[in-house]
Parts: sequence; C-alpha cells; structure tokens
Amino acid sequence: MNEQAPRSAEATPVTVIGLGSMGRAIAGAFLAGGHPTTVWNRTASKAAVLASKGASLAPTAAEAVEAGELVVVCVLDRDAAQEILHPVTDRLAGRSLLMLTSLSPAEANETSAWAARESIAFLGGAIMATPDLIGNPEEASLLYAGSSAVFELHRAALELLGTSTYLGDVAARASLLETGLLASMYSMFAGFFHGAALVGTQGVTAEEFTALALPWLKAMTTFLPGQAEFIDKGDYTTDVQSLAFNKGGLDHIMRISEHQGIGTDIMKPIAELIDRQVAAGHGSDSLARLIEGIRTPKA
Amino acid sequence: MNEQAPRSAEATPVTVIGLGSMGRAIAGAFLAGGHPTTVWNRTASKAAVLASKGASLAPTAAEAVEAGELVVVCVLDRDAAQEILHPVTDRLAGRSLLMLTSLSPAEANETSAWAARESIAFLGGAIMATPDLIGNPEEASLLYAGSSAVFELHRAALELLGTSTYLGDVAARASLLETGLLASMYSMFAGFFHGAALVGTQGVTAEEFTALALPWLKAMTTFLPGQAEFIDKGDYTTDVQSLAFNKGGLDHIMRISEHQGIGTDIMKPIAELIDRQVAAGHGSDSLARLIEGIRTPKA
Ligand SMILES: NC(=O)c1ccc[n+]([C@@H]2O[C@H](COP(=O)([O-])OP(=O)(O)OC[C@H]3O[C@@H](n4cnc5c(N)ncnc54)[C@H](OP(=O)(O)O)[C@@H]3O)[C@@H](O)[C@H]2O)c1
Ligand SMILES: NC(=O)c1ccc[n+]([C@@H]2O[C@H](COP(=O)([O-])OP(=O)(O)OC[C@H]3O[C@@H](n4cnc5c(N)ncnc54)[C@H](OP(=O)(O)O)[C@@H]3O)[C@@H](O)[C@H]2O)c1
Repeated sequence: MNEQAPRSAEATPVTVIGLGSMGRAIAGAFLAGGHPTTVWNRTASKAAVLASKGASLAPTAAEAVEAGELVVVCVLDRDAAQEILHPVTDRLAGRSLLMLTSLSPAEANETSAWAARESIAFLGGAIMATPDLIGNPEEASLLYAGSSAVFELHRAALELLGTSTYLGDVAARASLLETGLLASMYSMFAGFFHGAALVGTQGVTAEEFTALALPWLKAMTTFLPGQAEFIDKGDYTTDVQSLAFNKGGLDHIMRISEHQGIGTDIMKPIAELIDRQVAAGHGSDSLARLIEGIRTPKA
Repeated sequence: MNEQAPRSAEATPVTVIGLGSMGRAIAGAFLAGGHPTTVWNRTASKAAVLASKGASLAPTAAEAVEAGELVVVCVLDRDAAQEILHPVTDRLAGRSLLMLTSLSPAEANETSAWAARESIAFLGGAIMATPDLIGNPEEASLLYAGSSAVFELHRAALELLGTSTYLGDVAARASLLETGLLASMYSMFAGFFHGAALVGTQGVTAEEFTALALPWLKAMTTFLPGQAEFIDKGDYTTDVQSLAFNKGGLDHIMRISEHQGIGTDIMKPIAELIDRQVAAGHGSDSLARLIEGIRTPKA
C-alpha cells in the first residue's frame, strides 16, 4: 500500500541521508507532508519501508544530494557525517544543508565554517525529541542555528518535524541550547530524587511526594523569567528573597537532610554557591547572582 | 469600617496566637470566612487592624486558648511556641492545636509527643506560601500531618487558608515534605542557572533561554510519576533511557560545560551519582536508581 500524501506542486524536494531510527522518522514526516523525498543510507535495506511510502531510493550519496534542494543529514556523529559529505562537497555547493546529526557546539561551528568555504548554505539543528514524537508539534521541539536563509526558505518543511525555533546565525547555539536544556532537566530530576529520598525517611512514598512535587515544580517555573531578568541586566538588586534569605533555606535543607541520614551530594554545591556570594558581600542580592559562581569557577 | 463577613451559626471559634506577617494573614482569612476569631500577640499593638475587622483581642495567651476550639500558633520558632504554650498546657487539654510555626521534622515529632501526653489533639502544618497568598487556594498550599481528627473536624476552616493536603499521622511529615519540595525547587533553579550560564557563552540571553527552558521543564515534569513508580517498586528494570544512556548525557554536559569554560559544580554530583550506579553494575537500570546513592551516602 502506498501511503504517501498528495504532492503539492510547491513542495520542495528534500533528501534525507541516514536512515537510523531518527532519520527514518524525519523522512516519514516529509513524505506525510507531501514533499518529494529522496533517501540514502549506508545499509540500503533500512530504506524499504520508506520506499513503500513513496520515497525515492538514491543508489549513492552523491545522487541523493543532487535530488534535494534541502539535504538533511542524520547519522551517528560528526565523523560519520564527514565520511559521507566530504566526497560530495562540490555537489552540495549552492544547496541547503541541514545537519540533524548531534554535534558538539565546537563541531557545529567547525562544520559551519567548512560549509561557508564551500558555498554551502548551512543550518545546524538539535532535536529535543525521540523518533516516535517527530511530526507531533506538541511533543517535538527542534532548535536551529546558522543560516537564517535556509531556515526561512524551508520553514514549512521544518515545521513538519516539530515546533521549530531559530536561535541566530552562530551554528553552535542549537547544540549549546540543547545541552543547557538537558542540564536543567537533569538537575530538576536530581532535586526530585533528593526530595523523594528525604520524605522517604518518614515513610512517605515517592508517589505521594510526586502528587505535591509535580504541581509545585510547575508553579515554581513561573519564577524563571524573573530570574532571567536579573541575569540579563547583570544587576541583582532585589528587596525580596535575597541570597541571605535563601542561605537560610539551604542551611535548613542541609541540616534536615543530614539529620535524616541521607546524602547531601545534590544540595551541597547549591549551598556552597550561595555561601560564596554571601561571603563576597552580596547577601542582599537576588538568588540569581549564584550564576556568577557558575560562570567563574573557583580555581 | 468593620469588614467582617456574616458569621454563620456553625463556624467554629478559632484562636490565632502570633500576629507576625503570617499570623495576621491567617487570622484575616478566618475572619473573612466568618469564623469568630480571637487573637493574641506578645506585642499587642499588632492586633489593631484585625480588631477593626472583628477579631476579639485576648489580654493573655491563656484567655486566647480558652476562646478557641481550634488554636493556631504561628510564631517565630519552636522555642517561642514553647514559651507561650507550656504555661497554658492544662487549658489546651481537650482542644485542637494546629502548629503553623515552622518546626524541623524532629521538633514536630517531639511537639506531637508532648501534646499526646497532655491530651491535646495535635496537628502539625507547613505553609507553602507567603502571607499575601494566604486565602488564595490557587496560590497557597498547606501541608498537614498529625491528628486526622483535627484535620477532618476543622477542614472547612483550613481550606480558607489555601489548598490543604493531609499527609498521615506522623507529625514530622509536613515539615519534611516542605523541605523536600524546597530542595527540588532549589535544584531546578540551580540547573536553570547552569543552563543559562552555558548558553550565555555563545551570547544567548537568559531571556531567550527561558523561553525554551520554561515549557521544556514543565514538559519534563510529566516524567516524574514514572520515576516515582520505579522508586516505590524498588525495581529499576527498564528498557528505555537506562543509566548507561543517561551517563552519556551527563558526560556530554560535563565535557561541553568544561569546554565552554564554566563551572560544573551543579552537574558534577549528578554525573558522579550516575557513575556510582553504573560502576556497581546497574547500567541497564532506570535513572531513578540514582536515588539509592542519595539514600546511602558514600562514607
Ligand atoms: N534517537 C533519538 O532519540 C535521537 C534524539 C535526538 C538526536 N538524535 C541524533 O540523531 C542522530 C541519529 O540517531 P539515530 O537514533 O537515528 O541513530 P541510529 O538509529 O543508531 O542510526 C545511526 C545512523 O548512522 C549511520 N551511520 C553510522 N556510522 C556511519 C558511517 N560511518 N557512515 C555512514 N553512515 C553511518 C547508520 O547507518 P547504518 O544503518 O548503515 O548503520 C544509521 O543510519 C544521532 O546524531 C543522534 O544523536 C537521536
Ligand atoms: N512569612 C512567610 O513567608 C512564611 C512562610 C512560611 C512559613 N512561615 C512561618 O511562619 C512563622 C511566623 O512567621 P512570620 O513571617 O509571621 O514571622 P514574623 O513576621 O517575624 O513574626 C514573628 C512572630 O513571632 C512572635 N515571637 C517571636 N518570638 C517570640 C517569643 N519569644 N514569644 C512570643 N512571641 C514571639 C512575634 O511576636 P512580636 O510581634 O511580639 O515580636 C511575631 O508574632 C515562622 O515559623 C515562619 O517560618 C512564614
């Protein structure tokens, strides 16, 4: 059965190189959106299901590149991407290259510089989703940075993958943002685990804790824009919830945690970052000032 | 002007001892809800506004206690509460005592034991709100633990203060839950600061970061109930997002953070807790297993 959507005359021909679980999801979303879609994968057999949905199978990476106005690359890592792309550099010239292979910020900037030298319009991306969520804008968020021309020209196609955010022309920003978001997620989870361990010492289940922690943490996110304002101003003057006040809160958490016999690994560095700012004479400033201690690590 | 609400025949007479900023808010909410409200404060002048709203001013703490079926105490700390309550112990016998003074979990259990010896029905509480939010159930959450009879009997009055959650008969649980929630909040904020510092190294503003981090963190809270399930089962077997997978994520965050020249104070202990579980042979288990390393601190 051929499940492809009717192709609109205007839909840009796209190419997807790399048909791992993510590449297949991406190609599937383009096909569902009516784009003429050409695919290539080192192991050709992974293209079978996509072919049955209307994808064209290119016999070589070079032919795949030539078929698409937008060339999307989603393979394992930077080295794999280079192995595929460097031999076809001249065919990429003049086209739009979207790198959805995970790169470090430095790798993204290097790739962007290579593309600029070779007259390839380059957009870097980071996928905040698993393959099953691709195509669902409520669940999948994709971050883009690099050529704004590529982003604007192909925006409709990109929106087929998920909610799209453009972060400016420094290509590193997409993967840097992704890393920042993952860091904030892990730290939220770690705090949740600390809380669950703490209440568990008096027989409160993690389920009971979650019933409170979930709405509580959601409510607390509403304070983040206010914290961001202090950071962007670089002025931490406040008359509520000072660092000295929060020092009391952290000292309390440390004392109770120790008293209940659990570890303080997660909370201790937060207490120390606050203490450092208070010791430096900033006790009356906002909690947001502890970012200064993260920016300037202790020798 | 007398702003008091009409008193219903059934509204329980309540007493509020301690008229700092929180005690005044509490007494105000009871008055607004139509409860005959008697107040007492060491410094009597703080009762003036409440008197104008219809509160009865008791000349002594003993007389305040005798006027209320529910006696709420909201003073600075445990010592202040004891100074007031111990001399009037016999008058408290047979009444409901609600302690909204912040106590540590150990202090709450001690106070509960004292109350039991003195035939005082004791409920401990923790206020997850500032005084201005008291009376607003959308914004103020109050946690209660101790006598379920007191909670049930006075539930309608308690709901006047904010959303009320009863956590069982171990009095320590209210303050323990409060501490756990505060810990999870601080850790979420700390992760947000780490992320903001990281993206700032490539010129992304905290405001731009927040535009993504706020919906992202909210979305990530939906994973907490699943994590809680692993913890309560004590069985961390999973086939998605294993510790080994998350170790890759943390290693990536550590590497990128170091490369961008910022501190890793907040992320390092998370990486280490994951590493400990992986090293102990649990790499294929769920991330939730890192709670085991918090419960059993390293010697
Ligand atoms: N899956 C996710 O949840 C997710 C989420 C966000 C980002 N990503 C990123 O998306 C990218 C792809 O991930 P995935 O989940 O699709 O991985 P995957 O299922 O493991 O697929 C890996 C792909 O890379 C290809 N490949 C590996 N080494 C190669 C080489 N030397 N030359 C040519 N092709 C090579 C593989 O080709 P063969 O089929 O021939 O082996 C396959 O197409 C990664 O950078 C990943 O970090 C994935
Ligand atoms: N404010 C908040 O945002 C908040 C939030 C959650 C929990 N709480 C808790 O609520 C409680 C009260 O806080 P608050 O903000 O109302 O504090 P506050 O404005 O500083 O008032 C302190 C109260 O304690 C009384 N007090 C202190 N020492 C005393 C003593 N030795 N004997 C008799 N009375 C004494 C004071 O009486 P005088 O007027 O005579 O000095 C005053 O009524 C604290 O345990 C606090 O942790 C407050």
